[in-house]
Amino acid sequence: MLATMLYGAGDVRCEEVPEPKIIHPTDAIIRLSASCICGSDLWPYRGLNDVPGPMAMGHEYCGIVEEVGSAVTSVRPGQFVVGSFCISDNTCPNCRFGFQSSCVQREFMTGAQAPLARVPLADGTLVATPALPPDDLIPSLLAVSDVLGTGWYAADAARVREGSTVVVVGDGAVGLMGVLAAKQMGAGRIIAMSRHKTRQDLALEFGATDIVSERGEKGVALVKELTGNIGGDSVLECVGTQESMAQALQCARPGAMIGFVGVPHGVEFDGQSLFFAQVGLMGGPAPVRRFLPHLMELVLARKINPGKVFDLTLPLSDAAEGYRAMDERRAIKTLLRV
Amino acid sequence: MLATMLYGAGDVRCEEVPEPKIIHPTDAIIRLSASCICGSDLWPYRGLNDVPGPMAMGHEYCGIVEEVGSAVTSVRPGQFVVGSFCISDNTCPNCRFGFQSSCVQREFMTGAQAPLARVPLADGTLVATPALPPDDLIPSLLAVSDVLGTGWYAADAARVREGSTVVVVGDGAVGLMGVLAAKQMGAGRIIAMSRHKTRQDLALEFGATDIVSERGEKGVALVKELTGNIGGDSVLECVGTQESMAQALQCARPGAMIGFVGVPHGVEFDGQSLFFAQVGLMGGPAPVRRFLPHLMELVLARKINPGKVFDLTLPLSDAAEGYRAMDERRAIKTLLRV
Repeated sequence: MLATMLYGAGDVRCEEVPEPKIIHPTDAIIRLSASCICGSDLWPYRGLNDVPGPMAMGHEYCGIVEEVGSAVTSVRPGQFVVGSFCISDNTCPNCRFGFQSSCVQREFMTGAQAPLARVPLADGTLVATPALPPDDLIPSLLAVSDVLGTGWYAADAARVREGSTVVVVGDGAVGLMGVLAAKQMGAGRIIAMSRHKTRQDLALEFGATDIVSERGEKGVALVKELTGNIGGDSVLECVGTQESMAQALQCARPGAMIGFVGVPHGVEFDGQSLFFAQVGLMGGPAPVRRFLPHLMELVLARKINPGKVFDLTLPLSDAAEGYRAMDERRAIKTLLRV
Repeated sequence: MLATMLYGAGDVRCEEVPEPKIIHPTDAIIRLSASCICGSDLWPYRGLNDVPGPMAMGHEYCGIVEEVGSAVTSVRPGQFVVGSFCISDNTCPNCRFGFQSSCVQREFMTGAQAPLARVPLADGTLVATPALPPDDLIPSLLAVSDVLGTGWYAADAARVREGSTVVVVGDGAVGLMGVLAAKQMGAGRIIAMSRHKTRQDLALEFGATDIVSERGEKGVALVKELTGNIGGDSVLECVGTQESMAQALQCARPGAMIGFVGVPHGVEFDGQSLFFAQVGLMGGPAPVRRFLPHLMELVLARKINPGKVFDLTLPLSDAAEGYRAMDERRAIKTLLRV
């Protein structure tokens, strides 16, 4: 089958690889309904993470179960499933605490930019729909797997509540999903920091009430102006750079929580500043599994349409162009037809 | 009147100073029923904070209102009051958000190691008891002003819940109050990290279920052993050094919150480590005013006895010995008779 492999910075290829097989009795093989490229795929693509050897790319997936290992009991061939990018058993103490992304058996999904993928710990990781979903919901169900689940976690970690004032730093796909999540959680005001017209428009469509297109000191000043000089109750940091984190910290009111979901690259916090700013932090890889059933329900009931975040659709064989388009910010997020 | 002044590292003196006067119409003058020395007073005493000139020491207080400014309406002379070490108006957006320690008019109390003290923003800062309290409750009511309020905030920020497993790092007075707070909040298990017999005993009396007397890797290993290799749901960091914070981070399970209330001295956090450990942080100067009414009620109803944390009582004129005793860890916390 064809699959996407990253060989080094800027060098992504779609090439023939062997089809995945059941390795452990807890595995499932799924036939993907669609795949996509993640903002986090751009870190190694841009040379900001080491690429020790060819990497099988792709960790977002949904599709039809093709085969299950002998120990799998909760899903069966023919069912439509969505899974998290974090593989988890969903039974260990960390999973039961709601942090499946720190499962004691955690693995990170790989090889999902392909027509078939092996999902370890299928019972813990996959959630099946009651029936096969209509085709037009596939992009939204795919989004649940990571980008929506991650934006949702940012809002959850930032403790968005009914009526909260929320600031979203980052207008990538995750930030836009953070806007959607905050809206669903009842936020009264959602300030999206975005410089790009198409992303601003999507943010507004997902529920943003205000757009701040400035960054740095000017951006902070505008957020303060919009919030009675106080700052946001909840701030979603969806980038992962020192600059974006500084922005988040300065836009947060005392007592606010920052939910940070952009993998930090070179981010450091000074304890005393954090102390006197009295701003809380909670971040990490999103425990998407915790939110999967609820988010799948919202999609199936057509209450949310996170699939709108895909503004470019390409065949898997053009994956390299999908990476380029996202790298150059021509696309927010690329859906791959597999 | 006599008052305690810090002239420099190790140089604390009790000397004659003028009595405080009403300066602003929102001030009150109170006659202290007792005063005390705070663990945070030891930072400048130990030369770890700058002492630019003689500092009027003391920020914990309770006593009888002597005089109020013309704008004060909520307390009147003759009432017994407790106030927070953070002066706040209790009406600004930060106060209404429960973070009176970041009040837009915040000041830090000073000059309370004396028989009389001026309390700015009296209406926002002071809470009166329904009647004059019995003398034996004075130490506990004094404790509410900072040390208990701070331990309580540590537990609140660390989100201690019914049944939580709580780890308390630091066996100073604040750590011990954190144990008491966690117990009151219904924690199922409270692991106090303490190397000192008298503090261990007090921790057990306040509700600790386990004592870990090791530090560093051994201490972490023991906490892990006690928690099924997972770590605490909530961790209270009550010291403020890089070592104690590292201890707290390593004792926290994924998804845990660390409430940190020791003023950080040289503490830094690496964003990526925090991200992958998936441990949350919330700290800062405690918004004691938020908790004052509840904590005063608990004391007046004799449901808690935080005053037990004072294991040395001296006349104000012997304040220097009180500092020495705490610095040398001969005393947990010194009460000063004024």
